[in-house]
Amino acid sequence: MEKIKLLETFDNQFPDRDYSIIHTAPEFTSVCPKTGQPDFATIILEYIPDRLCIELKSLKLYYNSFRNDGIFYENATNKILEDLVEVCKPRYMKITAKFNVRGGISSIINVEYKK
Amino acid sequence: MEKIKLLETFDNQFPDRDYSIIHTAPEFTSVCPKTGQPDFATIILEYIPDRLCIELKSLKLYYNSFRNDGIFYENATNKILEDLVEVCKPRYMKITAKFNVRGGISSIINVEYKK
Amino acid sequence: MEKIKLLETFDNQFPDRDYSIIHTAPEFTSVCPKTGQPDFATIILEYIPDRLCIELKSLKLYYNSFRNDGIFYENATNKILEDLVEVCKPRYMKITAKFNVRGGISSIINVEYKK
Amino acid sequence: MEKIKLLETFDNQFPDRDYSIIHTAPEFTSVCPKTGQPDFATIILEYIPDRLCIELKSLKLYYNSFRNDGIFYENATNKILEDLVEVCKPRYMKITAKFNVRGGISSIINVEYKK
Amino acid sequence: MEKIKLLETFDNQFPDRDYSIIHTAPEFTSVCPKTGQPDFATIILEYIPDRLCIELKSLKLYYNSFRNDGIFYENATNKILEDLVEVCKPRYMKITAKFNVRGGISSIINVEYKK
Amino acid sequence: MEKIKLLETFDNQFPDRDYSIIHTAPEFTSVCPKTGQPDFATIILEYIPDRLCIELKSLKLYYNSFRNDGIFYENATNKILEDLVEVCKPRYMKITAKFNVRGGISSIINVEYKK
Amino acid sequence: MEKIKLLETFDNQFPDRDYSIIHTAPEFTSVCPKTGQPDFATIILEYIPDRLCIELKSLKLYYNSFRNDGIFYENATNKILEDLVEVCKPRYMKITAKFNVRGGISSIINVEYKK
Amino acid sequence: MEKIKLLETFDNQFPDRDYSIIHTAPEFTSVCPKTGQPDFATIILEYIPDRLCIELKSLKLYYNSFRNDGIFYENATNKILEDLVEVCKPRYMKITAKFNVRGGISSIINVEYKK
Amino acid sequence: MEKIKLLETFDNQFPDRDYSIIHTAPEFTSVCPKTGQPDFATIILEYIPDRLCIELKSLKLYYNSFRNDGIFYENATNKILEDLVEVCKPRYMKITAKFNVRGGISSIINVEYKK
Amino acid sequence: MEKIKLLETFDNQFPDRDYSIIHTAPEFTSVCPKTGQPDFATIILEYIPDRLCIELKSLKLYYNSFRNDGIFYENATNKILEDLVEVCKPRYMKITAKFNVRGGISSIINVEYKK
Repeated sequence: MEKIKLLETFDNQFPDRDYSIIHTAPEFTSVCPKTGQPDFATIILEYIPDRLCIELKSLKLYYNSFRNDGIFYENATNKILEDLVEVCKPRYMKITAKFNVRGGISSIINVEYKK
Repeated sequence: MEKIKLLETFDNQFPDRDYSIIHTAPEFTSVCPKTGQPDFATIILEYIPDRLCIELKSLKLYYNSFRNDGIFYENATNKILEDLVEVCKPRYMKITAKFNVRGGISSIINVEYKK
Repeated sequence: MEKIKLLETFDNQFPDRDYSIIHTAPEFTSVCPKTGQPDFATIILEYIPDRLCIELKSLKLYYNSFRNDGIFYENATNKILEDLVEVCKPRYMKITAKFNVRGGISSIINVEYKK
Repeated sequence: MEKIKLLETFDNQFPDRDYSIIHTAPEFTSVCPKTGQPDFATIILEYIPDRLCIELKSLKLYYNSFRNDGIFYENATNKILEDLVEVCKPRYMKITAKFNVRGGISSIINVEYKK
Repeated sequence: MEKIKLLETFDNQFPDRDYSIIHTAPEFTSVCPKTGQPDFATIILEYIPDRLCIELKSLKLYYNSFRNDGIFYENATNKILEDLVEVCKPRYMKITAKFNVRGGISSIINVEYKK
Repeated sequence: MEKIKLLETFDNQFPDRDYSIIHTAPEFTSVCPKTGQPDFATIILEYIPDRLCIELKSLKLYYNSFRNDGIFYENATNKILEDLVEVCKPRYMKITAKFNVRGGISSIINVEYKK
Repeated sequence: MEKIKLLETFDNQFPDRDYSIIHTAPEFTSVCPKTGQPDFATIILEYIPDRLCIELKSLKLYYNSFRNDGIFYENATNKILEDLVEVCKPRYMKITAKFNVRGGISSIINVEYKK
Repeated sequence: MEKIKLLETFDNQFPDRDYSIIHTAPEFTSVCPKTGQPDFATIILEYIPDRLCIELKSLKLYYNSFRNDGIFYENATNKILEDLVEVCKPRYMKITAKFNVRGGISSIINVEYKK
Repeated sequence: MEKIKLLETFDNQFPDRDYSIIHTAPEFTSVCPKTGQPDFATIILEYIPDRLCIELKSLKLYYNSFRNDGIFYENATNKILEDLVEVCKPRYMKITAKFNVRGGISSIINVEYKK
Repeated sequence: MEKIKLLETFDNQFPDRDYSIIHTAPEFTSVCPKTGQPDFATIILEYIPDRLCIELKSLKLYYNSFRNDGIFYENATNKILEDLVEVCKPRYMKITAKFNVRGGISSIINVEYKK
């Protein structure tokens, strides 16, 4: 609940045009709820804004807020999508989360939202 | 028969949404049934979960169980698909197995399942 | 208003044929209006000319004119599209602006125009 | 005629499913019929098996049999497709042959077969 | 007029099949008509032959003939397409010309021909 | 004081021979004491063991213990060297810490110890 | 004179040990005094601190101050060395400045200081 | 004891000259004695032969014999050196073993022998 | 004789310090005196200036003057060294010329001058 | 005996200066005397000429002459060195032969000659 309040938006100056924005954040980290060990991921956010754009610094602070959370890959990725959709109500949004190797296996989660 | 029992699942928390999960395992190894020599592959599993997700550690143990099996490329790849489909009943699944050079030739097998 | 006057065009010698031109400029720089710190981007311009092509040296001078402007990513990218469309009236145009890492996050803006 | 006899097949264990097999052979060499100089290529074979799969070692020997043949790029690529189609009667097959630089120019030939 | 006479063809041995040929020439050079300075490009020719294929050595000599010509990027790329189409009358042809950085900007021209 | 207790060692089985061990940890993270923002680094530890080797899992836990510490680059790197030297008393040790871009600048710190 | 005042230092906490610090800044830009066109470079600063270390944010501001200066490659690189040596009085310092392609030629300047 | 018997040698034809031989084996695998999980490494063997060279196929079989052995990184690397030195009595030998990421850390062991 | 007159110099502002300058020119082209076919090379010039530095634009024109000269690799590289040494009388100079593949073989020539 | 006669030389025009020449040939192929299967290698020849340089086309023909020879890696590399030393009597020569993967292992042979 708290987490989502970190996100800020600004008015899209070009609402008549469909265009896409991609923010790639290679420094996402959270904690595995099973082992207590840290997880690391690159989060790629792609969206087509409607009325609102996501403010970049607030996005960084939002991602940082996961630092000490115990959360599974699939849940973190879906939660990020849901929070960002709720805050900026985009025409389209996609989250790609690329998690580092654990036990010899790396993982990617892709979640999409269409208005 | 034994092998498939290594696989565990957990409940998909977001069954209302189609999203994809990719697990890349570059440390798969089995044995060539003809020559007795070890084979090495990267196994890329991509799927859209329905009710169940594949638990990552159990997936690793499942892959490891092929270590001393004598099995051909095509058979290993198809068997992995069939076991994983049986266990997690996904909406969609694809296995891409990239085998290392043997006799100057590298090989890739792609197998797909659609509900 | 001034900025757009830097852009020059020449006659497309092959107006009967749809063909595309891509100019990649990795040395774009402007200033963040919030922090006053410089931003850096690669601007990729792709278009299908109609009657007019964009003269390359004038494009460089046009990009250089942003050097000391305070302007946000999204606004810079959309403004470049609008200026270039106004000047060369293409059949199709796309601007891809890839901004360097700020606060651990890199950003790409994609804007398109179709006649 | 002789050459094709080098190719061996084995029964496809999964004929009910369309799946693809890719064999990449970076050590193909033949001789230019014009200059007598050796040519070098990577041959990428992709196919969807029907009843039969191509045995990997026999494929290597088949490719090796071109070693001292004088044959043009286009002819070698088309002949490989025809021989492999004749022997394994696939649902789909594609040969991509990437030839090394000659006279400052590298060449790729793509040939496809659909049942 | 002269230039096109450098191009030679040979009979396509497989006219019943659509297949593609790609020749990549990274050593193309001409002269900028404005500054008199040399330009450098990689020319990628892709085509589906009909009755005739382009002879590789003659293609090299044809490209070399631009060495001291003063010609703009767009004109060189379109002229190459027109000459090659006239000589080999393909089912499909595409020229991609990737020009080196000038004034901090690199350029790509894509031109296509469909029968 | 606490932190160093996380480190464990095991007996070097080959003390008569000088040999080197390199452990590369790309998932080091701490916090900037000035801004409170997270820092990320790859820590490369190279050493020649004397009587004792560093146990790998304990090294991971030791690195993880910096996760919420506010510490400058130079201090973190020197402290890691000092702790590891104290615990395993090597013949030679070198720490290379490669920190991610901050304010458009990436940083590397190299510290060495010789017996 | 002004420019050098932007640089700040902090006390080296480990003066008894020789260790090296490398700061890589890929976003340096100045102006060519001859053509008035912008130049772009990556500045790599390597030094062994004595009593003082260079504060990272002040280094960024110092580099930024060259943004609208007309200055030749060789002079910029030597001036940076002299200013940094004056301010932090290191045991050793090296500046490597890698300038982008101009007229088809890229340039690197290496300057060193030894106490 | 058994393991070393897999290694075969042949006479060095050029004993009057110091020259080096490097064999890189990216498919080494053993088992972690602690966790029972498989480990994977690339083994780089470099040596200057004296009277004897190591036969390549026997080297492969020797490496394969570690497949189901429980052995630590440092011990495997030192044992390989000792076995190979005993069998071929080289003028110089070096083993570099690059182990895959475990717990977010990759490891390299370098061991050398000089006559 | 003419060619060398294209080269211009400017005064080294820092003659009291040994520092190095590297100019990398990937667009050098000349003609093979045997076949009449064009050759392509990257010329890397590294030098320590004494009283004089080489002016960059004049260096480009000097390199361009080889465009239609028939000259062997070894001779071109040595001549460039001799001309540049004569004009700027450096403390040290090195020319590395990397020629593109001809007949399947690429070539590098390294020539050095020490005062 | 025959093979060496393929090699031709030309007079070194700059015998007063030590300079190095490197020819890299990635298309070397011979036959394994044990298995009859083809081997592939990149041969890197580096030398400092004395009175004579090796003519490039003759070098290609010399390398091509190994195409159907049954010869081991070590022997091929040493023989190439000996033939080239005998023909061009250099001040220094080094052959590096990088052989493709066989049985999962790639090999490099380095042989040197000093006058």
